[in-house]
Amino acid sequence: MSGRTARRRVLRIRLSDPPDAPHASERSDLLAAEEPLGIRVAGQALTMTMRTPGDDLDLAAGFLVSEGIVRSPGDIAAIRLCDGTSCGHAGHDGTGNIVDVELRPGLEAAPAARRNFMTTSACGVCGKASTAELFVEKIYDINEDHVRVPAGWLTSTPQTLRDAQRVFASTGGLHAAGVFEAGGGLLVVREDVGRHNAVDKVVGWALRQGRLPLRGCVLLVSGRASFELVQKAVLAGIPMLAAVSAPSSLAADLAADAGLTLVGFLRGGSMNVYTRADRVLADVPAAPGLAEPLLRDQ
Amino acid sequence: MSGRTARRRVLRIRLSDPPDAPHASERSDLLAAEEPLGIRVAGQALTMTMRTPGDDLDLAAGFLVSEGIVRSPGDIAAIRLCDGTSCGHAGHDGTGNIVDVELRPGLEAAPAARRNFMTTSACGVCGKASTAELFVEKIYDINEDHVRVPAGWLTSTPQTLRDAQRVFASTGGLHAAGVFEAGGGLLVVREDVGRHNAVDKVVGWALRQGRLPLRGCVLLVSGRASFELVQKAVLAGIPMLAAVSAPSSLAADLAADAGLTLVGFLRGGSMNVYTRADRVLADVPAAPGLAEPLLRDQ
Repeated sequence: MSGRTARRRVLRIRLSDPPDAPHASERSDLLAAEEPLGIRVAGQALTMTMRTPGDDLDLAAGFLVSEGIVRSPGDIAAIRLCDGTSCGHAGHDGTGNIVDVELRPGLEAAPAARRNFMTTSACGVCGKASTAELFVEKIYDINEDHVRVPAGWLTSTPQTLRDAQRVFASTGGLHAAGVFEAGGGLLVVREDVGRHNAVDKVVGWALRQGRLPLRGCVLLVSGRASFELVQKAVLAGIPMLAAVSAPSSLAADLAADAGLTLVGFLRGGSMNVYTRADRVLADVPAAPGLAEPLLRDQ
Repeated sequence: MSGRTARRRVLRIRLSDPPDAPHASERSDLLAAEEPLGIRVAGQALTMTMRTPGDDLDLAAGFLVSEGIVRSPGDIAAIRLCDGTSCGHAGHDGTGNIVDVELRPGLEAAPAARRNFMTTSACGVCGKASTAELFVEKIYDINEDHVRVPAGWLTSTPQTLRDAQRVFASTGGLHAAGVFEAGGGLLVVREDVGRHNAVDKVVGWALRQGRLPLRGCVLLVSGRASFELVQKAVLAGIPMLAAVSAPSSLAADLAADAGLTLVGFLRGGSMNVYTRADRVLADVPAAPGLAEPLLRDQ
């Protein structure tokens, strides 16, 4: 496996006073590593992603969950890093940038709805009718997950996640995704240059641990919440996604459709709850103009 | 065209003192819009991206530049938003989420090196030999671009970019990319939920304005600098990429190969210069351990 960080020479310039007399010094700096990872199923290339090396098997497994291809550990008969010889190119000196997956007999890597959508006639992307085609079919009904979490606990989770990030501290260059037990501790944290990869890594970890669906859990991401991150949470059976930064419109729409609680701007002791706010617990008096309390601890 | 923002109901929770008595209020909030955009060439689907509506023709044109398919305005014979009828599905009510492109006679949307790489045998991703396959072939020799910019000017550009962002101010949810004349003003700024899209939009703008290659210019991005952003800069003939946040290892490696000046952590009056620091001008005394000044105003 390649390293998660890479050392490079850098010229550090700091403007001083007066501003036309900056200070510059050359030094060695750690960067977050970014390398391609290929995922093969039954010997056929399925996809390639640019990722930070590490937890590559989890990343591949989580990707397969997010595509709706696998849903239980038994769906994966074998998963391993290519050693550079099994692919018939023994001369390769590079290893570890391909994951080979074998599915259980009878299961195929059928293209998910979204994949079809991306590679066939794009006419279907026009308008609302086609947005539905973006959605990989749900496996779990998270709408029925009645977990609730205290608002005060939620505001504490970003610091917990940051404290658990190992590579970010040295490079400043990684997204993080973490799964918490609702109201409790951090189960797993993963980092990557790609926010989608970080989520795939935690979902793949959960799959391989036999923990899917992640009922009663909260997925926290260090950045923004896009449509794809909401979809990944839904496919993993996670009832709540919290993001430190802003969600997109389609993220909020998909969350509403799926019954996912979507929290954004979770920082500085405050948050925005876009959907299914009933899962966020707080003793709150009725806000002006509202007939009754929006949230009640039950 | 769909809107760049979308209004959604949100529950805003602020923890007060004591922390178990939060204040909650429901209100209407603006989110950055995220919708699919399909790009068709000669009637065939080429790709689909999740993007913020707006500047869609620039986005499609810039994508084609980044894939190495077009390099001058004349390479595009026609480019237009599908009106929902030209695709033979007049019943569609949604319009504006597909861009149709016709290339000049003789030019085909041949899959770029990276695209082949993604869809054929993934064996090639092992090791360094294959990393080269990730690179779309360069068109311009930015190594020979002798532009230089003052360090003090560079540190002023993030605020200029932020001031020019219209949607971010209302949603907090968008990446930005801007092109500056070196040492001068901002030529163009574009926003998107996807950082790659924001860069494609400015590159596409430049193509359609007949401004490619963008010699003597600086591309500034509001987030991190990945491999793909460096590649997009190189394909547009831009000699300098500056990022407010961290670069990845592969971004630095590709920048070094291409002769691109890569600046990271450009904020708070300081910056890191990873490659081709000779383009950053400052009167700087020799740093300890260095035989001669790293930077000299010439």
